[in-house]
Amino acid sequence: MPVREMMDSYPATINLDRGLLADAVQATLQCAQTCTACADACLSEQSVDQLRKCVRSNLDCADICDTTARVLSRHTGYDANITRAQLQACIQACTSCGSECHQHASMHEHCRICAEECRRCADTCQTLLHAIG
Amino acid sequence: MPVREMMDSYPATINLDRGLLADAVQATLQCAQTCTACADACLSEQSVDQLRKCVRSNLDCADICDTTARVLSRHTGYDANITRAQLQACIQACTSCGSECHQHASMHEHCRICAEECRRCADTCQTLLHAIG
Amino acid sequence: MPVREMMDSYPATINLDRGLLADAVQATLQCAQTCTACADACLSEQSVDQLRKCVRSNLDCADICDTTARVLSRHTGYDANITRAQLQACIQACTSCGSECHQHASMHEHCRICAEECRRCADTCQTLLHAIG
Amino acid sequence: MPVREMMDSYPATINLDRGLLADAVQATLQCAQTCTACADACLSEQSVDQLRKCVRSNLDCADICDTTARVLSRHTGYDANITRAQLQACIQACTSCGSECHQHASMHEHCRICAEECRRCADTCQTLLHAIG
Repeated sequence: MPVREMMDSYPATINLDRGLLADAVQATLQCAQTCTACADACLSEQSVDQLRKCVRSNLDCADICDTTARVLSRHTGYDANITRAQLQACIQACTSCGSECHQHASMHEHCRICAEECRRCADTCQTLLHAIG
Repeated sequence: MPVREMMDSYPATINLDRGLLADAVQATLQCAQTCTACADACLSEQSVDQLRKCVRSNLDCADICDTTARVLSRHTGYDANITRAQLQACIQACTSCGSECHQHASMHEHCRICAEECRRCADTCQTLLHAIG
Repeated sequence: MPVREMMDSYPATINLDRGLLADAVQATLQCAQTCTACADACLSEQSVDQLRKCVRSNLDCADICDTTARVLSRHTGYDANITRAQLQACIQACTSCGSECHQHASMHEHCRICAEECRRCADTCQTLLHAIG
Repeated sequence: MPVREMMDSYPATINLDRGLLADAVQATLQCAQTCTACADACLSEQSVDQLRKCVRSNLDCADICDTTARVLSRHTGYDANITRAQLQACIQACTSCGSECHQHASMHEHCRICAEECRRCADTCQTLLHAIG
């Protein structure tokens, strides 16, 4: 992914640490795709009736991570308040979804992978949030 | 919009006030569309170089409002923490974007309408957030 | 929804019929929200195992309609080829999803409403597509 | 990205070649992020008034690629007609956006990278479209 290359071709000032920012863009995109795929995999499980809450938290988490990746990919007219609030929503969605997926991790490999991605994404966003202050 | 009709055909319990919820779904969808259109209108203004920050906050606000409308349209496996955090991000985005658009409201009718939509959306989300507690 | 007001405040030329365009923006947004809500309602039905395909087509249709609403809300640097191709994808998604929802319409009110919205959205997009030529 | 891992944990049949599918998911996600970043970089260029059409095609391409990545990440209730139509819209958006960015490639590194990503994404989607038939 040319996330860092694009950042380095941005013609004005970037107010955040580029390494942390690139990590968070990558993590949110990756988590969004994993959640979309996990929702779909749950939908095809025989035990779909026990995975209703899991599908729902996957759908929320995918939408919130996608939006966070977009907000973090923009540097023009930077507004720390928006970045901070969207990171907090993202950390919350990843924490809730990761915890839900974790409950099915021993049964379903897709939930195991998704729980891991959610935790990594929450951590990466938390690190960036701390750096913003 | 059949927002309320769809809500009333939901087969399980909805944990929030249906009127406030339907208002917030409608307001976020409407604000998202208005922000997408305002970003595009700014892009075609002669004075586009003075509207860079406005375009950016419109793009963030459109993405965040769209995601909020989706989160609020789901009731299965309700998680108050996610709804709360996403509403807070939405209120922040609408406040920032509304304030930016307001600065161009006397020059550009699209910014005037957009500032108004952002303020209405922030208020409607705030009312719902209070109800969630 | 101030769809038409925003269109009328656009500072440059709009290449399409404003009435048809505004109708299509409204229809795609409305269909997207209805599909998101229908996917969620299906997920809470006792018979969720018979609604797997319905949930999936709802999710695709919601994403495709949302993107179509955004493309149609932009007029700067108009490219008929993109608008045409995205409208065709939208008509296909609405036709497939409407037909799937129609099969459950007598059992589930949310599927009945959603089938109707999908058909209305497909028709409105078809009318705009014909006007583009 | 665990795109392929998630695919391999899907509990039912996948109707398309997994390698081609994983390549297309990766390419569309990557192109979407690059387009979002390119729109933002253009917005901060001194010559923003000459990049209006470029920003617009970047925004369309980002939305269409994101939606395509989601459609391709789902396998439940597979409908070749939707996948085909969305791939065609994606190829069109990437071709238009890549051609627009290419015109600014010698001036702006972000447009050069973005033109390349758009072409790679169009090619990868074309290969998958051929395989679907």
